[in-house]
Amino acid sequence: MSIANKLYISQINNWVGDIEENGKKVISEYKKAVANNCDLIIFPEMTICGYPCDDLWQKKYFIKKCQNKVLEIANNTISNKCSIILGSPTIDHYNKKDIFYNSAIFLSNGEVKKIFNKRNLPNYGVFDEKRYFEPAQFLSNIEYNQQTIAVIVCEDMWERKNILLLKEQILDFLIVINSSPYSIDKHQNRLQVAKQIATTINKPLVYVNQIGGQDSLIFDGSSFVIDKNGEIILQMKSFAEDYAIIDIIKNIDNQNLSENRNQSELIINNYVNNFTIDQEDQIYSACIVGLRDYVYKNGFKKVILGMSGGIDSALVATMACDALGSENVELYALPTRFNSDQSIIDATACAKNLNIDLNIISIDSLFSSMQEITNEVFKKNSNSDKKNIALAQENIQSRIRGNFLMAISNANNSLLLSTGNKSELACGYATIYGDMCGGYNPIKDLYKTQIYKLAKWRNLKVPSISNLSKKNVIPNNIIIKAPSAELRENQKDSDSLPEYDILDQILYCLIEEEKSISEIVNQGFSSDVVKKIASLFYNSEYKRRQAVIGPKISSMSFDKDRRYPISSKFKY
Amino acid sequence: MSIANKLYISQINNWVGDIEENGKKVISEYKKAVANNCDLIIFPEMTICGYPCDDLWQKKYFIKKCQNKVLEIANNTISNKCSIILGSPTIDHYNKKDIFYNSAIFLSNGEVKKIFNKRNLPNYGVFDEKRYFEPAQFLSNIEYNQQTIAVIVCEDMWERKNILLLKEQILDFLIVINSSPYSIDKHQNRLQVAKQIATTINKPLVYVNQIGGQDSLIFDGSSFVIDKNGEIILQMKSFAEDYAIIDIIKNIDNQNLSENRNQSELIINNYVNNFTIDQEDQIYSACIVGLRDYVYKNGFKKVILGMSGGIDSALVATMACDALGSENVELYALPTRFNSDQSIIDATACAKNLNIDLNIISIDSLFSSMQEITNEVFKKNSNSDKKNIALAQENIQSRIRGNFLMAISNANNSLLLSTGNKSELACGYATIYGDMCGGYNPIKDLYKTQIYKLAKWRNLKVPSISNLSKKNVIPNNIIIKAPSAELRENQKDSDSLPEYDILDQILYCLIEEEKSISEIVNQGFSSDVVKKIASLFYNSEYKRRQAVIGPKISSMSFDKDRRYPISSKFKY
Repeated sequence: MSIANKLYISQINNWVGDIEENGKKVISEYKKAVANNCDLIIFPEMTICGYPCDDLWQKKYFIKKCQNKVLEIANNTISNKCSIILGSPTIDHYNKKDIFYNSAIFLSNGEVKKIFNKRNLPNYGVFDEKRYFEPAQFLSNIEYNQQTIAVIVCEDMWERKNILLLKEQILDFLIVINSSPYSIDKHQNRLQVAKQIATTINKPLVYVNQIGGQDSLIFDGSSFVIDKNGEIILQMKSFAEDYAIIDIIKNIDNQNLSENRNQSELIINNYVNNFTIDQEDQIYSACIVGLRDYVYKNGFKKVILGMSGGIDSALVATMACDALGSENVELYALPTRFNSDQSIIDATACAKNLNIDLNIISIDSLFSSMQEITNEVFKKNSNSDKKNIALAQENIQSRIRGNFLMAISNANNSLLLSTGNKSELACGYATIYGDMCGGYNPIKDLYKTQIYKLAKWRNLKVPSISNLSKKNVIPNNIIIKAPSAELRENQKDSDSLPEYDILDQILYCLIEEEKSISEIVNQGFSSDVVKKIASLFYNSEYKRRQAVIGPKISSMSFDKDRRYPISSKFKY
Repeated sequence: MSIANKLYISQINNWVGDIEENGKKVISEYKKAVANNCDLIIFPEMTICGYPCDDLWQKKYFIKKCQNKVLEIANNTISNKCSIILGSPTIDHYNKKDIFYNSAIFLSNGEVKKIFNKRNLPNYGVFDEKRYFEPAQFLSNIEYNQQTIAVIVCEDMWERKNILLLKEQILDFLIVINSSPYSIDKHQNRLQVAKQIATTINKPLVYVNQIGGQDSLIFDGSSFVIDKNGEIILQMKSFAEDYAIIDIIKNIDNQNLSENRNQSELIINNYVNNFTIDQEDQIYSACIVGLRDYVYKNGFKKVILGMSGGIDSALVATMACDALGSENVELYALPTRFNSDQSIIDATACAKNLNIDLNIISIDSLFSSMQEITNEVFKKNSNSDKKNIALAQENIQSRIRGNFLMAISNANNSLLLSTGNKSELACGYATIYGDMCGGYNPIKDLYKTQIYKLAKWRNLKVPSISNLSKKNVIPNNIIIKAPSAELRENQKDSDSLPEYDILDQILYCLIEEEKSISEIVNQGFSSDVVKKIASLFYNSEYKRRQAVIGPKISSMSFDKDRRYPISSKFKY
């Protein structure tokens, strides 16, 4: 004899704070599960409110609204055999105090049958859950359709103690609901940990993750199921909504029940496992999901950006077309006397490849007028030295562009994209209030060397979630020419910075690996170069603090991962 | 017979990350304590590294450097009878893992005699200590010169459980070392809690706090000593470095030792208690300490700002002169056709009162050129509606000013001050990349109605820490005229916002009290007005995320207290 539970795994894009629409999406998915004769539908962590809600989670009336929505959803299960597991914040009362939890909730027969509270609250990196929630004291499980199911929430899976606890329990399978943000290699780590757990407890593991961009976090979905032997039985899509239906089958031999508790089998229906994508595809997809969701979740449809003829803006323009369609992207070239004809040729060619007419508007006369007025002030002031004045002149151009683009953005209600890469932001080489202007920066967490790789990759491949089916959109000359900000005569990035392959290695040591100057020098880099880069890096904290957000790609992005004081004398 | 311990309380301004200089300050203070024949010198929490160090606290080599400095300082106590209590992060090793603590360290006879680890780690509001440290499992004390001293760290004092534990212990007095940031009424709360503890444990309490500005946090010092009856025996300065020497005297009756454990008395030497200051003085002093320390700690000497003739920039200019001296403040008026003559008259008069020549430079021709070029683009674009174009035109002016002032800032290496108040930032009425440009905003956490109060107060009083001994510096016309951004013909703030006394009350409910729209309407405010304000507030999160920092004054400032998602549909 065998007992089967048919599971519907729902990998949805739930919006932060949009309790109403998230609820509707849950119901709509639930109906599909019912139509497919499923016994249980499983949603990601914080299904009802999105993740992360930050200080919204401190508002009691916000949590109450979430709870009310959960009860409303529970009503749908009254006369259906299909139950629901979803995520929501919940309030408990203890010692006359309100205690908030991050919960997985089991809804069945119109009722909340069980609440599983998260035990391990992440409070590192991009996470601040100890600010909002109390940890659960223990793990628990539920009997459902003659199968015993343990349910845990995200971080609980990563804590070895919990796995040892689960090993002691009698259960048929484990469900993990997640809002696990993307970063390079994150999915490999998840699979590794999940495999270890499945083989340790000798039971199948169902991992459900949300998908979508939420400010600087990108959830990649990539939900999966692993059998008791650690084999990946199901791998769902990355960076797109998806669903899957599987059967968890338990063979019961009445003669010897206890021995056969281990016999749960998985059968996956109507599903093909073909969603492994290469690293460039992952990174690129994360950038366009982040951009697309930021634009839509903030009520915009269109974006604009400045095209310099360089690789950064060319890649951002391409990502924007991929994310939103070329018809929703406006491109402006705003040259001064320092921009070469070749730059305009390159920018025009790239725009044309993207099916967009480049707007070319000279700002040189504006620059001249501003120079005239500021030069008079500089002359009067004895504090101005030549080097500083030269820098001021460079920044003036960038800020006129910022002003111009923001005016278009204001007038057309289109979002301005910023195009500074991670190497530039790390060194403080972007102009604050100039090219740093904008509402989102899709390449904020990409080093310059990654920008080149992605540009080459995009010329060869079209990401599956793209709105632009063309290849070879970035002209080769943009990829091969020496990078320059073109803010003075014959300027090259390499005038003041080492070559990018060296620079990026040093920055990676400083940022991702948090190494000291002496540790980096010991790795074989020039002491002078490392000191110069570290000094640029530590002294530009104030700029990064005022920078626009962008998608987290690395293990140490500038938005929520890295939290440093501006005023600090520790620069080693 | 009696036993006396002479205590030196050192209320210093220790800089974040400046281990070397903080160490020197400790030694210099220690020498004064020795010269005064003291037995023990007490420094604030995190003496060695400053507070808060944010992610510097995650760097092991940073903590190691702090520990080494502590050992170096300990050497000074080898042949001196005076011991030291100071604060530092420390590393312990447990189960092959590094564990970081926030510690108070007792140095005596050249050695680390005892380490007291913080038990309650604040992880709310502006605090993130659970991100960095492990909590201590228990409280402890030390025998010193025949007195038993309990030492706790900051938040430990605020946890009732700890007080009950202390009550059970046999001790002579309690020392609390702190990095407790200022906010309105904070000191009253501290005194109240401390009094309750002193009377509960029936022992004197010595409270040592640091002073100084660290990015958006201002430490007010205000160290104090309370006797066992809850009386304030010593109140040290607010917003200035200070020291005090007190004697803790224990009477010992050999016949009846146990009964007389309670007999510690306090005698304060060479000290006068006259440092109670009114609320306006506190707020104003917090703003100028924040500004002064941000400027100095980031290597600047001079500041510049734009003077509009309005009250915000007039107050910021005055604060800058108070903080840095008039000789280090440059003022620019940058009018367009929309700025009235009266504004220039008012700005000039204010500058003159501050002993500064106002630089008046028209930007109207720059505005015209920019208008010309952008209007052509607007005409071509069918998406631009009239209202949006009008807004774009307003912002253009503000951004030309930002560009101009940043050019001066770059050329002269002077810090640009931003002058947006809390009401404006809450409603999103400041222009991003325009008047929001700058490195510090001393009035960022002040509502418009507070700005008026402070301006009137400053005309009557000179703060004790000021560099400008003049009163009546802000012309009365600036205080009495209707506020206007002067970005279009005859514009008044009240055209689009309710009067500031209403606006600020609604904002206070939304921000400080975190109330919902319906709760605020139930208080008696117009539903339409509350909805409009709430919508402005929630929709301008992206601007605040890119805003410059400023001193925390309220219980809910925008910098570290309030952490909200940008993309969020929850706007109730």
